[in-house]
Amino acid sequence: MSSAEAKAARRTKFEGVFEKIRDELISHFAGEGMPAEAVEWYRNNLNYNVPGGKLNRGMSVVDTVEILKGRALTDDEYFKAAVLGWCVELLQAYFLVADDMMDASITRRGQPCWYRVSEVGMIAINDSFMLEAAIYRLLKVHFRSQTYYADLLDVFHETTYQTEMGQLVDLITAPEDKVDLSKFSLERHRLIVIYKTAYYSFYLPVACAMLVSHIPESYTVPTSPPSTVRPYDLALSILLPLGEYFQIQDDFLDFSGTPEQIGKIGTDIVDNKCSWVVNTAIKLATPAQRAILDENYGRKDAEKEKKIKALFEELNIRGVYAEYEERVVGTLNKQIDEIVEVEGGLKREVFRSFLGKIYKRSK
Amino acid sequence: MSSAEAKAARRTKFEGVFEKIRDELISHFAGEGMPAEAVEWYRNNLNYNVPGGKLNRGMSVVDTVEILKGRALTDDEYFKAAVLGWCVELLQAYFLVADDMMDASITRRGQPCWYRVSEVGMIAINDSFMLEAAIYRLLKVHFRSQTYYADLLDVFHETTYQTEMGQLVDLITAPEDKVDLSKFSLERHRLIVIYKTAYYSFYLPVACAMLVSHIPESYTVPTSPPSTVRPYDLALSILLPLGEYFQIQDDFLDFSGTPEQIGKIGTDIVDNKCSWVVNTAIKLATPAQRAILDENYGRKDAEKEKKIKALFEELNIRGVYAEYEERVVGTLNKQIDEIVEVEGGLKREVFRSFLGKIYKRSK
Ligand SMILES: [Mg+2]
Ligand SMILES: [Mg+2]
Ligand SMILES: [Mg+2]
Ligand SMILES: [Mg+2]
Ligand SMILES: [Mg+2]
Ligand SMILES: [Mg+2]
Repeated sequence: MSSAEAKAARRTKFEGVFEKIRDELISHFAGEGMPAEAVEWYRNNLNYNVPGGKLNRGMSVVDTVEILKGRALTDDEYFKAAVLGWCVELLQAYFLVADDMMDASITRRGQPCWYRVSEVGMIAINDSFMLEAAIYRLLKVHFRSQTYYADLLDVFHETTYQTEMGQLVDLITAPEDKVDLSKFSLERHRLIVIYKTAYYSFYLPVACAMLVSHIPESYTVPTSPPSTVRPYDLALSILLPLGEYFQIQDDFLDFSGTPEQIGKIGTDIVDNKCSWVVNTAIKLATPAQRAILDENYGRKDAEKEKKIKALFEELNIRGVYAEYEERVVGTLNKQIDEIVEVEGGLKREVFRSFLGKIYKRSK
Repeated sequence: MSSAEAKAARRTKFEGVFEKIRDELISHFAGEGMPAEAVEWYRNNLNYNVPGGKLNRGMSVVDTVEILKGRALTDDEYFKAAVLGWCVELLQAYFLVADDMMDASITRRGQPCWYRVSEVGMIAINDSFMLEAAIYRLLKVHFRSQTYYADLLDVFHETTYQTEMGQLVDLITAPEDKVDLSKFSLERHRLIVIYKTAYYSFYLPVACAMLVSHIPESYTVPTSPPSTVRPYDLALSILLPLGEYFQIQDDFLDFSGTPEQIGKIGTDIVDNKCSWVVNTAIKLATPAQRAILDENYGRKDAEKEKKIKALFEELNIRGVYAEYEERVVGTLNKQIDEIVEVEGGLKREVFRSFLGKIYKRSK
């Protein structure tokens, strides 16, 4: 099997678990006496919004459990890890259905946003709620008897809250319809990215994998003198900057990537996004260049977009990004190297594997 | 102190706890490094949407704990019960902010709906999410070390999911803009009411009070032979029909109550609500009367509303309601009488007190 085939097979196996849990959610819902029309609606909600993405977040739970155990998983271990992976994907679906409404977006994953499907409209709000509620239904069914059940609930709750905090700051910093670059800064960008993306996309999958693998809250490592590791904090200290790097790269690719590379046309400039690119430009701009930014950024106008792109080139955003990437990857590798591995503890490979998938990716 | 003064003092004391937990939520949020503008926004969200209602649901947690303990509460006991009460109110705020958007409502509690406040708009979706997330933040801070912590999380999750199920069925049964009475029936009404209202308004506050009072999952009562009681199931078996009765009464008052009585003008008819009144009319109507219903219900037209009201009178909805009320109150009283009280178990007064507040209320 080629590596591309192996990747496709991994995805297919993971998608198989979605079918199971979707059917489980639907049977429970129908079993509560809900009318056929509502059952159909909920099924469509789940099918339309949950499985069609890249599934990186969900599958990273499974990958991380495999790395932590250092061996192939039993069927039951695989299933449990995959259920947690789908819970992360459900959380993302919850956020995206709502985010598209708040951003007045048109399409998502190559199809109309859910709220734009005829008959759906504002009911999409309740549908997003149900995607979130499905998480806790699944956790109860599959994890209620585990010692780490309350920890699992806590990490989902906290991550959800953090993401919503980041979303709020994003919404009031960069409203879809009102450009005000005085609110933007690299510090503001960092806060938004860490809260809105890094916690749920990077920390949450790894924390789930660690809990299901019974990684304890703290353990001792044989340094001299021996020292105490708090592995969840340690994971956070690497995964938050890693998530920030991922989003900065995403922002950079939106500007620099060709549609062939990134599989879509970048719209951050016309959408008034509080992106790393514009924030870097703001930092580097002369007053004259700043005036160009103020007049042309965030406008639904191809000519203005061109002016912004030209300015980004003039400011050598490509060079600044290349430098940033080398620096952050160096720092992350150093942090990873410093992890002391013990039986039943964190593994360097957990983080290497994330970094390997992100570094120099072009889509 | 008169009974009205005592009631006002109870409310003031309960509201005092809101100030505390709001400030606690805000400090935590600010402590995460959120910008001042976001802190202000979150404070406004909490102040605007959480405390202004009747607070019956929230205060019933405190009342129920007092009844279960059979004595005045210590300060700490009061505070814990009140925090749970505010968690129920936060859950309701989460639902109402979103429900008003889905119903395209104009006002709530005598002020514009939150999404209609200038600058808010669709950000209200994320604001509703944050109201829900605040629940789990509070539960973690105040209940993490309790043995019943996971049970508390479970009951909030389950109730949330049930409410969302009911909301979905309501939304697709009675869309705000499309009248189709063929979808209506008393059975459908019952399902909507139980799921959308009864679980979170009646069962949830009592279940919270029972958990914080350490009522066990099951216990034995000295019947002959002794029998096992599952108190949470027992509470449910009374509180769901009680909640149904409450909502049927609410529907009836929307039609029959004068604005002076109910403190607002009933709009269920023009709003195409799947109310007990219209469903009863549908059941009793001749084909000719049904045609009147089909042509005039759910239209934003005062003349049509008048025709519907006249038909409701013609069908003697008032008499049908009076009969229903006597019957359901009789059944509930019988169920309550049958409760066998033991030390540390459920008390009849928990249910009597709810019933006493509802029976023959006029607002
Ligand atoms: Mg968006
Ligand atoms: Mg957005
Ligand atoms: Mg992007
Ligand atoms: Mg409404
Ligand atoms: Mg509604
Ligand atoms: Mg009503």
